[in-house]
Amino acid sequence: QREKRLHYSELSKIFIRLRKLDKEKFLEYIKRMPSKDLGDILLSLSENVLEEALEALSVKKLVSTIKRLESDDATDLLQDIEDIDEELAAEILEGLDYKEQEEIQLLKSYEEDQAGAYMQTEVFVASDSETVKETIERFRILKVNGELENVSSVFITGDYKNLVATISLEDIILFDLNNSFKELIIKSPEKYKPRYVRDVDDIEDVAKLFREYDLSAIPVVDDHGYLLGRITMDDIYDIVQEIATEQIYNFAGVDEDVETGKIVLNVSRNRGKWQFLNMCTAFFAASVIGRFQGTIEGLPALAVLMPIVASMGGNTGNQALTVMVRQLAVGDVDNSNWLQSLVKEILVAVMNGFIFAVLVASGSYMWFKNFKISIIMGIAILVNFAIAGLCGTMIPLFLKKMNTDPAVGSSILLTMITDALGFFIFLGMAKIFIY
Amino acid sequence: QREKRLHYSELSKIFIRLRKLDKEKFLEYIKRMPSKDLGDILLSLSENVLEEALEALSVKKLVSTIKRLESDDATDLLQDIEDIDEELAAEILEGLDYKEQEEIQLLKSYEEDQAGAYMQTEVFVASDSETVKETIERFRILKVNGELENVSSVFITGDYKNLVATISLEDIILFDLNNSFKELIIKSPEKYKPRYVRDVDDIEDVAKLFREYDLSAIPVVDDHGYLLGRITMDDIYDIVQEIATEQIYNFAGVDEDVETGKIVLNVSRNRGKWQFLNMCTAFFAASVIGRFQGTIEGLPALAVLMPIVASMGGNTGNQALTVMVRQLAVGDVDNSNWLQSLVKEILVAVMNGFIFAVLVASGSYMWFKNFKISIIMGIAILVNFAIAGLCGTMIPLFLKKMNTDPAVGSSILLTMITDALGFFIFLGMAKIFIY
Ligand SMILES: [Mg+2]
Ligand SMILES: [Mg+2]
Ligand SMILES: [Mg+2]
Ligand SMILES: [Mg+2]
Ligand SMILES: [Mg+2]
Ligand SMILES: [Mg+2]
Ligand SMILES: [Mg+2]
Ligand SMILES: [Mg+2]
Ligand SMILES: [Mg+2]
Ligand SMILES: [Mg+2]
Ligand SMILES: [Mg+2]
Ligand SMILES: [Mg+2]
Ligand SMILES: [Mg+2]
Repeated sequence: QREKRLHYSELSKIFIRLRKLDKEKFLEYIKRMPSKDLGDILLSLSENVLEEALEALSVKKLVSTIKRLESDDATDLLQDIEDIDEELAAEILEGLDYKEQEEIQLLKSYEEDQAGAYMQTEVFVASDSETVKETIERFRILKVNGELENVSSVFITGDYKNLVATISLEDIILFDLNNSFKELIIKSPEKYKPRYVRDVDDIEDVAKLFREYDLSAIPVVDDHGYLLGRITMDDIYDIVQEIATEQIYNFAGVDEDVETGKIVLNVSRNRGKWQFLNMCTAFFAASVIGRFQGTIEGLPALAVLMPIVASMGGNTGNQALTVMVRQLAVGDVDNSNWLQSLVKEILVAVMNGFIFAVLVASGSYMWFKNFKISIIMGIAILVNFAIAGLCGTMIPLFLKKMNTDPAVGSSILLTMITDALGFFIFLGMAKIFIY
Repeated sequence: QREKRLHYSELSKIFIRLRKLDKEKFLEYIKRMPSKDLGDILLSLSENVLEEALEALSVKKLVSTIKRLESDDATDLLQDIEDIDEELAAEILEGLDYKEQEEIQLLKSYEEDQAGAYMQTEVFVASDSETVKETIERFRILKVNGELENVSSVFITGDYKNLVATISLEDIILFDLNNSFKELIIKSPEKYKPRYVRDVDDIEDVAKLFREYDLSAIPVVDDHGYLLGRITMDDIYDIVQEIATEQIYNFAGVDEDVETGKIVLNVSRNRGKWQFLNMCTAFFAASVIGRFQGTIEGLPALAVLMPIVASMGGNTGNQALTVMVRQLAVGDVDNSNWLQSLVKEILVAVMNGFIFAVLVASGSYMWFKNFKISIIMGIAILVNFAIAGLCGTMIPLFLKKMNTDPAVGSSILLTMITDALGFFIFLGMAKIFIY
């Protein structure tokens, strides 16, 4: 799209391209890059390219680069470095001021899914006894020194550094400069009451809050109401996208964190878990066929047609399953309206079940010219569609009730049911009605 | 989470709950709700509840409600009303001022995937000849009248109403009040050069821009550079989520727009399309089995075991497919590094293929005590895993090259290959080596 001066995301793209064309030049320019821009570029590199860049850079340069980053990004980069070279990361950490070290240790101390892991400690705070004029003067100095970015509101703290109000720049710009914030807040306390999250809150809930209340930033406090930092909308964009990726991956039985890592063995092992489960369910479905070996021996056409019943049931069930899982995730389906969805899904499954029963029965007849097999085939399709619609809806609801993620494993569970029951209904009817 | 005064999203939840408990009370409160809050509540109702609410409300009240909404939301609500009662929507539109009508017609004129369909026409604009002081005064009046929300920057226009700069409130607050914007911009023109999008740009690209450049709002211009409106981050949260839903649904062969609609028949028809395709591919896979009827007749154990090869190949392929589709969508995989992904996927598939070949062969031997069948089973699993890894990676890449969405239909195509080839390899080897 249309550009202004080079943004770090453009710079990063240029460097990634340069690395592919000419490694020497890439390292040369990396070394010459000012600390101010280097951090964002390093953050955008893949693990092996980052490793090359680190070898070319001095500890001193890396320290000054980390210093120029915002605390959340500094922590991310230091963790990336730690994954490559623990010693180097420790050396860099030692090069930082005591306060910077403390900040990074705090951010590192949170679990990956906690709000604290996503906050930055850089916030613009004013004491409630300060006047608006004094605050704007402080703001000017911080801006001139490039120490502040993306400030859309000022957090006001009380006597004990506890968060008492959030005031947007939109309001600040209209205030009487000689008032103290206390005086202004007392006039409309409800208006400036801060919306905030706890450091230990789940980051997915925080993302929901941003969406629901149209926020651009939110303060993060500890259990005493002490202001620790803030989470800004740019990180929420990434989180929303990551949550979606996680859900898509969960469906297929792959793990987002493992896949974005570089270790092929971890990927194999993680995917292997689900492949193992799938092997077990496949053997189970096969055992159903095993009960009907005699039936198949006499009429091998049954073996030819039975995978059609299983495949179409699985496909139908997966449609219902996908819709349910997603609507549960975004909150469109909940305790109050799940029954409506169930009715809808069964209706859709049965309607299409009738149509495809006729189509599949006709196709089978044209192929094998066996009337009985065709009728049985049609009935099996209809029944398996109905089961697929029912299970596709109920499995996610059940998993949700059990407090596990409805996306994880549900598709393998569903396929087991539609396979096993599909085989059972088709071969069972054949055994009864043909012999 | 912790609350300040009631936000419309809370109000909406209360009304939705109330509707379930007591329809009469719900309608009574809807009628008593001030126009200021009513619009956001109506926007959150489902189609049938909205229909009830519309019957209880006068045209006059609806007109004043629409007037209080921001233009993008007003357009959305009017379109929702139009879906229920075209005449009522026309009456409401007539009740609006000429300028309001024009705005809504403009927003309605865009396609669903164009940036223009998501913009609001309410922007805070200043002419470059205005002084900062004059602008802040105008801003104060608009704020007091409640006509402006979520302003994080001021758009500056030149002599022909063309967009010439974007200045954030962070900067405005620090400016000398007596300067005109022109004087300020000339001092550092690069800094204030506006980033913008065209009204006809794809909304997915706009969302990417927000993520890449950490934006909180972006101006929308026409092909002459004339400022039409802006898109704000709160709408982007919704769009990012919707894009993810679309992708998840595409995988399963369901359509997001149809599923969120209320017409069950449309859902059936749309899902039926993919079920039909799946029926064709299932018949194709069955036709492969058909070639080996004689083989199966002599040894029905083959019919019992063959679905295991197909199922496990499909599962493995789907893992690779899912990772590829998603990484293509978020831009982690592109022209420059797809080969790396292919190598990784085939490595993972072959490694796990060996392990599961051994496991499945052992399981088959314990079951049927037939050494030849077990060996053939193991080889079929290994080969089908390799094919699955290859196709799971190449199908999305191929679809992307063909400029179609890699998520759509790829899973059915993949399953066809892993099913048909799985059956072919297993039964083919059985025919050669057992007879
Ligand atoms: Mg710092
Ligand atoms: Mg940043
Ligand atoms: Mg990381
Ligand atoms: Mg972070
Ligand atoms: Mg919203
Ligand atoms: Mg950040
Ligand atoms: Mg994760
Ligand atoms: Mg309006
Ligand atoms: Mg709004
Ligand atoms: Mg809209
Ligand atoms: Mg970003
Ligand atoms: Mg909006
Ligand atoms: Mg759509």
